[in-house]
Amino acid sequence: MQQLILNPRAERRLKLGHLWIYSNEVDTGRSPLKGLAPGSQCEILDSKGKSLGHALVNPNQLICGRLVSRKGPLTAKLLKRRLESALALRERYFPHPSYRMVYGDSDGLPGLVVDRFGDYLVVQVSSWGMENLLPDIVDGLIALLKPAGILLRNDHQGRKVEELPALSEVVHGEVPEMAPFEENGVPLLAPVYAGQKTGWFYDHRDNRARLNQWVKGRKVLDLFSYAGGWGVQALAYGASEVTCVDASGQALDWCEENATLNRRQDDLITIQGKAVDAMKELIAEGHRYDAIVLDPPAFIKRRKDQKAGESAYRHINELALRLLEKNGLLVSASCSMHLESDTLLEILRGAGRHLDKSISIIGSGGQGADHPVHPAIPETRYLKAHFVHLSGTQQ
Amino acid sequence: MQQLILNPRAERRLKLGHLWIYSNEVDTGRSPLKGLAPGSQCEILDSKGKSLGHALVNPNQLICGRLVSRKGPLTAKLLKRRLESALALRERYFPHPSYRMVYGDSDGLPGLVVDRFGDYLVVQVSSWGMENLLPDIVDGLIALLKPAGILLRNDHQGRKVEELPALSEVVHGEVPEMAPFEENGVPLLAPVYAGQKTGWFYDHRDNRARLNQWVKGRKVLDLFSYAGGWGVQALAYGASEVTCVDASGQALDWCEENATLNRRQDDLITIQGKAVDAMKELIAEGHRYDAIVLDPPAFIKRRKDQKAGESAYRHINELALRLLEKNGLLVSASCSMHLESDTLLEILRGAGRHLDKSISIIGSGGQGADHPVHPAIPETRYLKAHFVHLSGTQQ
Repeated sequence: MQQLILNPRAERRLKLGHLWIYSNEVDTGRSPLKGLAPGSQCEILDSKGKSLGHALVNPNQLICGRLVSRKGPLTAKLLKRRLESALALRERYFPHPSYRMVYGDSDGLPGLVVDRFGDYLVVQVSSWGMENLLPDIVDGLIALLKPAGILLRNDHQGRKVEELPALSEVVHGEVPEMAPFEENGVPLLAPVYAGQKTGWFYDHRDNRARLNQWVKGRKVLDLFSYAGGWGVQALAYGASEVTCVDASGQALDWCEENATLNRRQDDLITIQGKAVDAMKELIAEGHRYDAIVLDPPAFIKRRKDQKAGESAYRHINELALRLLEKNGLLVSASCSMHLESDTLLEILRGAGRHLDKSISIIGSGGQGADHPVHPAIPETRYLKAHFVHLSGTQQ
Repeated sequence: MQQLILNPRAERRLKLGHLWIYSNEVDTGRSPLKGLAPGSQCEILDSKGKSLGHALVNPNQLICGRLVSRKGPLTAKLLKRRLESALALRERYFPHPSYRMVYGDSDGLPGLVVDRFGDYLVVQVSSWGMENLLPDIVDGLIALLKPAGILLRNDHQGRKVEELPALSEVVHGEVPEMAPFEENGVPLLAPVYAGQKTGWFYDHRDNRARLNQWVKGRKVLDLFSYAGGWGVQALAYGASEVTCVDASGQALDWCEENATLNRRQDDLITIQGKAVDAMKELIAEGHRYDAIVLDPPAFIKRRKDQKAGESAYRHINELALRLLEKNGLLVSASCSMHLESDTLLEILRGAGRHLDKSISIIGSGGQGADHPVHPAIPETRYLKAHFVHLSGTQQ
């Protein structure tokens, strides 16, 4: 097995528990990165030659290596133990097999995501290292979970960066167009082939559960609704009426399908269009809502988007506050890793002051237990949601 | 009404939404603080003479004023509207009248706390401004809530700082020794006269609800248990056995009483003693737990306690991790305002690395909706709890 030697002091972050190695941290004089095949497994040594563990390496990336073990190489046997450990966590915290079963670095399997929809699994691989281990991964998942089908959704952006080919294929059994599962006790269908990412966003489960307590008999607006993760659950929990807004007509069809599954299709209103345009029109028409969900795609994908992204968050949050009834509730979410929870709070403060509205934060949430945060890797924590109460009284 | 003029640029924080005025921000040349009676209401002007609102003032304090309104003085009428607004928020988010009904600055009533236990109210006043308004407050609460009794628990430390007299008295109706209420659907009793603060800590309600989902059939250790907020709820939710540890024998009696109310007294074990000593003994005796709650009092009360406090948190968290079964869950909480949520996370990371245990954070929570966070006042957010899963696999 090839060895990579790190520059002096480069090992500190790894010793603290982080798993990533940057290409400028490798002593390329003593251990050249050039010539290593993408996906090679290497032993990582500190500058004095002490082993720090094993990593999957791609010499063409800024993050050129990700530690997979501190004890020995990632063998088929260790991979199996990692999958078992990931499953043990989910079985401890979830009563139903609907969850993210593997969440990359946090489960000791960087570059791998597996979402479980009852009998079906959807797998995403985003590194050459995991790509090479794919046969063992599929075998391990079959042995552990005996799924009826496994779908590889390897058509995402992350693979382009790693120069991996895009493809989507069933690698085991059969997988239906719409995979049945449940979230917070609500039966749902995930568009696993045609939907975004793996077909569903399990990460907001706890935040949706929090909202579900408070929607009975209420009028709800769900912006960037996708397949109805928030909106249809609100209907299932007794919302009097839910309006889902999405730019994609197909997403709204999935909302309809999920609402129908819960026999609440008669109280679902769908609006196809951009969220900002829809909100402006709803304001102009005098609509008001008891609860509004603002769960946009990441506006800040890279650091250079920071300023424009923050402005965009501010803009949509102001529009949403204008659509809220007094004593209403805004759920303001962001999945931008580069937007801190406190910065989103500051955006909300600014929006409230600008509109001269008195708001308070009655709760804040993050990812569910199936997206565990690795305590040494801040990058594994990306999701935030603030629950904003609009007071009826002036300050 | 007296006016206080601020120094140039001192108004910025207030304009952003904060409500506090520091004594060094007042232009004492133009508007002397000296001679003002503690608790006076003053109009606050910026350096150019523009009104910023009205504040309750105590010239002897570092924070010499707290804004109560941006429009006019805090009259009995405005006080009534503030109470109504606070109640509207609670009635929106809580099905049962058991909650913090007024939470100081966040409810526009700095220096006032009111906890509601069904028919009974416990009131705490911590500023001369609110002390002066007390007759109106009591009248307002009676008119709005028609309580069977109101207890003033004005015997806390905060009053010493403000040089307010300590006293505890029933100011309306009758209040029993143990006030019945509920939290997360569990019937409980709060020692409103003899207990800490108002008798109960409602702030952890959501974090307890999160734990309650995962305790069925599990063995739980509740450290710093007080009257059983975590431990007795865990029993009510089906924990097989709960061990409560507290330095106070009286607190453990209240645990017994609450467990008996829920017919689970047979599965409650109590240990009177310091948490650190008890943990060391439990480790020595080979005890292990499926879930552990670590909810200590604030170890960092002032900035100067920072380093010693962080060490103390690190120490108890390491002990707790050593008592945890594999695939077990540690709820690690802190109510120290001066300990950031991320610092507690870093303490947990360090503890895990030091013990060579693989941990992940499966959830993080804060205060419940009855302790709303004022978006411009970071000081209103103080509570944090991380849910730490101990993996069975090595890193």
